This record gives sequence, structure tokens and C-alpha cells, in this order.
Amino acid sequence: LLHLLPTLVQPAQSLARPPISKFSVGAVGLGSDSCIFIGVNLEFSGLPLNQSVHVEQFLCNNLAVHGCPRLIALAVSAAPCGHCRQFFQELRDSSSLQILITSDHPNQNFSKSPLPFKPLLEFLTNPFGPCDLLDKESPLLLEPHSNGLSFDTSQKHANLCNGYSKESELDGNFKNLSNGFYGELEESEALPRIEALEAAIKSHAPYSGCSSGVALMDPEGKVCRGSYIESAAYNPSLGPVQAALAAYIAGGGGGYERIVAAALVEREGAKVSHEDTTRLLFKRVSPKCEFRVYHCSSVENGCKKASE
Amino acid sequence: LLHLLPTLVQPAQSLARPPISKFSVGAVGLGSDSCIFIGVNLEFSGLPLNQSVHVEQFLCNNLAVHGCPRLIALAVSAAPCGHCRQFFQELRDSSSLQILITSDHPNQNFSKSPLPFKPLLEFLTNPFGPCDLLDKESPLLLEPHSNGLSFDTSQKHANLCNGYSKESELDGNFKNLSNGFYGELEESEALPRIEALEAAIKSHAPYSGCSSGVALMDPEGKVCRGSYIESAAYNPSLGPVQAALAAYIAGGGGGYERIVAAALVEREGAKVSHEDTTRLLFKRVSPKCEFRVYHCSSVENGCKKASE
Ligand SMILES: [Zn+2]
Ligand SMILES: [Zn+2]
Repeated sequence: LLHLLPTLVQPAQSLARPPISKFSVGAVGLGSDSCIFIGVNLEFSGLPLNQSVHVEQFLCNNLAVHGCPRLIALAVSAAPCGHCRQFFQELRDSSSLQILITSDHPNQNFSKSPLPFKPLLEFLTNPFGPCDLLDKESPLLLEPHSNGLSFDTSQKHANLCNGYSKESELDGNFKNLSNGFYGELEESEALPRIEALEAAIKSHAPYSGCSSGVALMDPEGKVCRGSYIESAAYNPSLGPVQAALAAYIAGGGGGYERIVAAALVEREGAKVSHEDTTRLLFKRVSPKCEFRVYHCSSVENGCKKASE
Repeated sequence: LLHLLPTLVQPAQSLARPPISKFSVGAVGLGSDSCIFIGVNLEFSGLPLNQSVHVEQFLCNNLAVHGCPRLIALAVSAAPCGHCRQFFQELRDSSSLQILITSDHPNQNFSKSPLPFKPLLEFLTNPFGPCDLLDKESPLLLEPHSNGLSFDTSQKHANLCNGYSKESELDGNFKNLSNGFYGELEESEALPRIEALEAAIKSHAPYSGCSSGVALMDPEGKVCRGSYIESAAYNPSLGPVQAALAAYIAGGGGGYERIVAAALVEREGAKVSHEDTTRLLFKRVSPKCEFRVYHCSSVENGCKKASE
């Protein structure tokens, strides 16, 4: 399978959406589940460049969305930038992640061994990363996150509770999130809300504790979700809306303007809040999308709809 | 002077403003003009982490503000993250930039040679950077930028024109910026506007072409400005408001809430626009600040005040 990776880079590249740079980058990664995942870069016109999604972030997010526990190797069309080498630090044993840059080997026949993979540690020596800030036991990206976000036990949303303990008390901030009943809401409101919570539950935010998630719905009712992925170095973090848009594109989504509804779940008064910038992003890429924000205040207060 | 750098790191660190991480980082750099510059990290509560300013970005911005042409070496309290190693690529001959990480040498007596400096290339091998995208002649960060932004020649703002050709036609987007006359405006409007233009003139935005600048004014009428600094890798770019706030703190500025007026200059309809996110940032850190945006549309249309 490793031999396939470099040959698939160019086909993957065509999915990139870089309206500012016009510089399409593609990557193809191999997961420990023997699945192959793609990554491309996304840029958003009219917004600061730090809202962009790099190909390597897209790829990691794709593994996260599909529950793949480990990224083993990737081939990528251009040298990963420092920002992405830093983002990769959120993976367990990141230093041994194998990377092949196809543009460095323009005439190579990739069907023959040995392939010129090099470990991440050779690209980013003496790294700053999770081990400088977290306990060894803290889950890293792609590892199960049981951050204790849970539902009001008086409600019956069994489909959302699989894998998560309702009784968990590790972090009560999202308790009682589902104040309304599914049945009382329109599907375009109820589904994104619930999926955004699920995304927030799975988010990787060990540095700030500010879990958050976004879900998007297309006209056919298909929902994509994205979990916030935090970096130990802060700036390379992937916002929840970026994660959701990457999932939307990885899933074959069309234009952003097709998104009819979206929801963001985050803590009320979070020190790291994505509400305002997510709203700006939708205003740019999908102005007709119904965007709702659900704030979670505390165990007592539960979660309320903040704004539309 | 090199021996001084590591010993000054700890004193510099005390200027950091990291309300989210509480993790103060300090850096001290030596410029080619034999000046010593400091850097610290800034975080902004309630906003996404990608609005943060890293210590290395603060340091480079400090050299830019003071017109120092080259950063020779720096000592820093923690290993630079990948994002910053990437940001450094915008400097000419960045691979030879000398870096000393003080936390790696806790018991070292830094008054004795040899000091454990290592070149940037050892921290970020096989880098992606400006040379992958720009002509060799393109000015890099800290080098003079003559991007052709200029004033209406019918006006007499001689103090703003030093070093810039009024006749330059390289980029006419900011022509006729000063539609109003200085004398017709309150100083709290006129000064930030003119300084923000000056900052935009000096901005390093070779990848998108979307030059922009911000200026801040304190109650004593002191004005700080910040030029947008773009990264070849996009996400590590330093926004103009972040650059201006870094200059404000480097200049001994007090709380952000003391800022009474601010201006942003950017092109109308720019593919990379900082207007909305800058507004959000002021809303958080300095809600009473009068923030004005000046859009430049074209040679013909000049620049108009967009909003307050
Ligand atoms: Zn990157
Ligand atoms: Zn950094």
C-alpha cells in the first residue's frame, strides 16, 4: 500500500480549493486500519490567511472523522511547511511518521523500493509539542477522547450516547446540553445541533479545555461534522468549522453555498471561542446558510441556543 | 553582545501577555545594527488561538518597526514551534539565523564561550519558503518594500513620503488615499489613518498582494503602527492588528483598553481582508476604541472611509 501513496497524490490534488494562491497541494496518507486517506488545501477568499486549511491538517482531520487510530505514512506534493510539521506533533509517536515529498523526486518510479520516505523528526528536530505540556496519559489526536461531555440523563438520545458514559463527571460543562427535544425541532435545526455536540465531544482541546464542534447540513439532509483540533503551539490549531468544511469536501460535498444549515457547539464564555469567526466564515462562503450557535454554560444551566 | 542575549531572556519574559495558556515565553534578538530587541507572546481571550502572537513573530515585528535590516541571532526561553520556524523563513538567509534555547541549557553559564547557538536550518530542514514562490529579487521581511503605495500628488504630506516615490506605478491600489485633508479631521482620526497607510506601505504581502496596516493611538496621542507580515505558508502570517499590538507592548504600552483610536488600511475587496477579524479583536480587547477602516479601491477611486 505504501507504494500507492505517491502515485495517488496528483489525482488527490484536483480536489484542492485554493482561490487565493491557486497553489493546489495534495497528500495521501496510510492509516493503521489499512485505509487510504486524502488531503488537500483550502483557502477562503476575503478572510485572513490563518483561516486556511493546509493539506496535512485536512488529512489528519480525515482520519479523525473516520475514526482511524493512527497515521503511518503520507506522500505529499510539496514540502510540508513548519506550521504543519507542528500540527503533526499532536499525533502519538509523531517523530516516526513517514513522509515522502513527491516534488523532490520528479523522475522516480514509485513502484520500486526503496521509497524515499523520511521520518517527521528529520523535518522538525528538537520539537516543541504535547509532551512539553501534557501528561503522558493524555489522549492525543486520533485517540479516544472521553472529555465527559454528556446529555441530560432524563432524555432519550440513545443514538448519540454510544461510546460515551452519561455518568462521566470528568468535565460537566456540556451536561444537559439537549434542553429541547429532538421531536420539537425542525430536522435542519435538530440534526446539526446534535452532530455538532458529538463533534465537540470528540474534539482535541487539551491545552485550553475549550472543546467545540461544528456540523453542516446539505440540501439532501446529509450532515458532516468537524471537531476542533488544538495544537500545543496554539496557532496551528484547526478550527471546528475548518474541520467540518474539510470533512464536507472529503465526503464529496459540492460548493459551500449548498450548505443549508450549520451549528456550532462551544462553552459559553470560553477563553477560546470560535463563534464570531465561524459566523464571518459562513458569511463569506455560504451566506444563506442558517447558522446556529449553542452555548453550554455549566452543569446547572445546561445549553441554550445563543443566536442564529 | 551575543553573550547578553540568553541572560536577558528571563527579564523580557515578564512582558508576555498570555491570558489563556499562562505560559510566558521570552526572546531576545541581536540585529545587524547592534541593537537588541525583545519578543514575548500575546494571547487574546475569547478569540481563536490563531490570533495569538508568538514570541518569535513579536521579535521580528520589533525589528521591522525599528527598521533594523537583519536579525543575526536570538535566545529564546522555549523551543520555537514549527509555526515560528516557518515564519522565520521570510527573513533573508534565514537558514543561518542563530538560535539558542535557554531551557535546553538550564545550568549553563552564558558568559563563557562557546555559546550553544544552532542555525535555523537545523531546526527546520528541507524548508518550504519564499524561494519556492518568489523571484530572488523580491524583497523579504525587513528589506525595503517599495510597493508603490502613494498619495495623491496634489496633497502635501511630505512627512509621509520620505523614501517612497510618488511617481511609482508598481502598484497603484493605494493611490489617492488621502482624499480628505489632514486639517479637516480630528487628530484622533487623522493620525491613525496616515500611520496605518504608512504601515500598509511597509507591509510584506508578496504572496497575496493584499498589503495592509494598522495604527493605534493612546490617550496621550502616541501612535503605534503594525504592518501585515505574510508567510509563504499562509497560516503563520502576522495580521496587521497583531503587529500593531506587539509594537504597542514593545513600546511600553499599558492595557489594551487604553487604546482610544485605531485605523486599518487595506484594499477594498481584498482577497485577504483583515477588516472583520480586526473589528472582532478590538471588540474583545478594547471595546471603547474608535476603530475606522479605510478601503482603497483603485487608482481612480482612491480611498474612502468604510466604517467606524
Ligand atoms: Zn502547511
Ligand atoms: Zn511559535
